[in-house]
Parts: sequence; structure tokens; C-alpha cells
Amino acid sequence: MAKKTLKPKAFFITVEGLEGCGKSSVFNFLTTFLKRKGYSVKVFREPGSTKIGEKIRKLLLDKKNGNLSLHTELLLYLAARTQLIEEKLKKARSFSDIVICDRFLDSTLAYQGYALGLGKIAFDSVKMFSLGINPDITIFLDVSPKVGLARLKKKDRIESRPITFHNKLRRGYLSLAKKYPRRIKVIDASGSLEDIYVSVERLINRVLPR
Amino acid sequence: MAKKTLKPKAFFITVEGLEGCGKSSVFNFLTTFLKRKGYSVKVFREPGSTKIGEKIRKLLLDKKNGNLSLHTELLLYLAARTQLIEEKLKKARSFSDIVICDRFLDSTLAYQGYALGLGKIAFDSVKMFSLGINPDITIFLDVSPKVGLARLKKKDRIESRPITFHNKLRRGYLSLAKKYPRRIKVIDASGSLEDIYVSVERLINRVLPR
Repeated sequence: MAKKTLKPKAFFITVEGLEGCGKSSVFNFLTTFLKRKGYSVKVFREPGSTKIGEKIRKLLLDKKNGNLSLHTELLLYLAARTQLIEEKLKKARSFSDIVICDRFLDSTLAYQGYALGLGKIAFDSVKMFSLGINPDITIFLDVSPKVGLARLKKKDRIESRPITFHNKLRRGYLSLAKKYPRRIKVIDASGSLEDIYVSVERLINRVLPR
Repeated sequence: MAKKTLKPKAFFITVEGLEGCGKSSVFNFLTTFLKRKGYSVKVFREPGSTKIGEKIRKLLLDKKNGNLSLHTELLLYLAARTQLIEEKLKKARSFSDIVICDRFLDSTLAYQGYALGLGKIAFDSVKMFSLGINPDITIFLDVSPKVGLARLKKKDRIESRPITFHNKLRRGYLSLAKKYPRRIKVIDASGSLEDIYVSVERLINRVLPR
């Protein structure tokens, strides 16, 4: 019988960005790239990746619930996150090489904290309900809202917000990157997907533990 | 044209209790009693009383979501509460004489804080997300779990928890009543509904501002 060898805690990567930054494509590229390198990879998205999280996601994205209070919105994102952390992420970190998540706590800080103006209550509650889980590396795909939004076809409740909102959001992410320079890596996402892939590949090769 | 006279902020009453304490009946009695006295009364329940709050209530009470993490459960209750406060309760306090709510922050403190063991994170987050709204008076209908549970017919996800849980819950409420003696009034709910009504009536006549 083969002896089970326990791996050290998986390397945890999150991917962030404004609408139209190419996040979904980059996320898929990153997954494939890491698997090709031989790593076992576990993939999550926020809000979601659990049964209750996907239901919460529906509540948040449904235009019919458009009058959500800002605090309610914040708490729903946190609720989806704690379920993901406790039901899946903690286990995944023990049994995989790499865990990647499409959006994580920086989304809440950038959207609710900066762009929607909740400030301190967003920062405090995100910290309180991250339950000790922090990404090792966060990739912020940086694109100007003008370029990003022009790439989009259909718009959901978040994407249909005005350009000033998206500008605040970008400034929020850049403030976070300045605040946490060792964790958050800004990648220029204004060019072609191929260009972005090259930058991501280079970054990952540099930061992954050997 | 009649001049509009703005009322001072409405008196805010919440009703709390273990399953089978007679809360629904007492709540209806209280509403009728206050209206008969000539007050304009606005009635809410938690979680719920808003469109999104009722959807959150469904998520919480559905047995199929039985594996909710404790933190997620806490955050969903808070999410429903902030929506109620910001969408309805604040307005109602400006335009009614009395606002009453079936469960409010003490439910979260007793259930999540005490009975489910979240402690400090429950207390801190309840405070953070009550947005400055506190009941003037809270009626705790006190009944032993043995008596209360025997009164129930069908059980939902919360009620089907073991008796030890309900005992912890009661101790939680009594601790809160000890901590906030001016706000939380304990009423013996082990007798007949008529007996409880008399006690509630007496209490209300004593505490209502003249």
C-alpha cells in the first residue's frame, strides 16, 4: 500500500480585475498552464463554488433585487465567502498544490470599500470574516474602464453602473496594490490576450515556490 | 391644508423567545393591543419583511441548505437585518408611533453568539451592522425548552436541533437580560396564553412613554 504523503499548504492565487479586463480567459489560461506544469490545481470562483454560495450569487446579480442596501450587499458577499472557506477552501489547501480563486477579498475591498464608499466597515468586516485565509499572490488585471467596458457585450447589474463607478473601482484596486505590494501584482491588461498570458506566465514562474 | 406635524422617533419594541414560547400569538396580541390604544403601529419580522430579506429567510430555513457554515448563517441574518433597517425600519421610526419587530439583534446574539458558540465575532458584527438602531424595549418570553418544544407540531431546520441546543439558547437569552436589564424584560411564558397577555399588557403600560 502506497504511503500517503501530506503536502504542505497549497499556494493560493486569486485573480482580480474590472469588467472586460479578460479575467475569465486569463483564469482559464492560468488553470491550464499550472496543470501542464504538473501541479494539482483546485479552482473556485466568488461569489459561488458552493451550493449556498451560488444561490447568494443569484440574489446579488439579479436585477430585480436592484435596491439592495450597500451593507446587505457587503454581508452577502461575506456570507458566500465564509461558506467557500469553511466548506471547500480550507480542505483544498491541504490536498492540492495550488488553489486559485476568481475574485476574493480584494473584490470586496475594491467594490464595497472603495467604489461604493463603505470604507472602514468593509475593511473591518472583510478582515473579521476572512477567517485567517489570505491569498499568497493576487493578480490584478489592470485595464482602463473605457477599454474594458468597450470589450463587453451584455451587461448585468454590476456592469451597468456608470463609468465614474468603474473609475473609482480601478483607483481602489490600485490603492490596494500600493498597500499590499508583496501580495498584489498589477498586470497591464490593456493589450491582446496573448500579451496578458505572457505577463501572467512570467509572473507565475517568478513567484511560485520551488 | 392641514400642517404636517412630525412625530418624534417611534418607540421600538422587539419580541424574542425560544420555539414554542407563544411568540407569534403574543406578537399578534401586542399589535392589536397597541392599535386599540390608538397608536399607529408598524410591524416587521426577522429575518424578512423586505423582498431580499424573505429570500434570505428561505435560504436559512431550507433543510436542503443544512450544511451552512456558522459564519455564513450569521452573515445571512445580518444581511437580512441591514436591508430591513435601511429600507424600512428607519423610515417607519419617523412616521409611526410604535414599531415592533418579531425577533431582532438579540436573536443573533442568543443563537449565533451563545448557543452556537460564535461568541465575540457574533457580538462584534451584530454591533457593527445594527447601524445605530437599538430596541427601546425587548420582551423575552421565557419558557423552558421542554415545555416550549412540547407545544410545537412541525419542526423546521432550527427547531429540529437537540434539546441541549435549546437549553444553551435559553441561558443565552437570560445572560443577555442580565447584561441589559433596562432594555430586556423577561416575561414568564410557561402558563396559558391569557396569562402571558396579561403580563405583556402590564409591562407595556409601564414602559411606554407618556
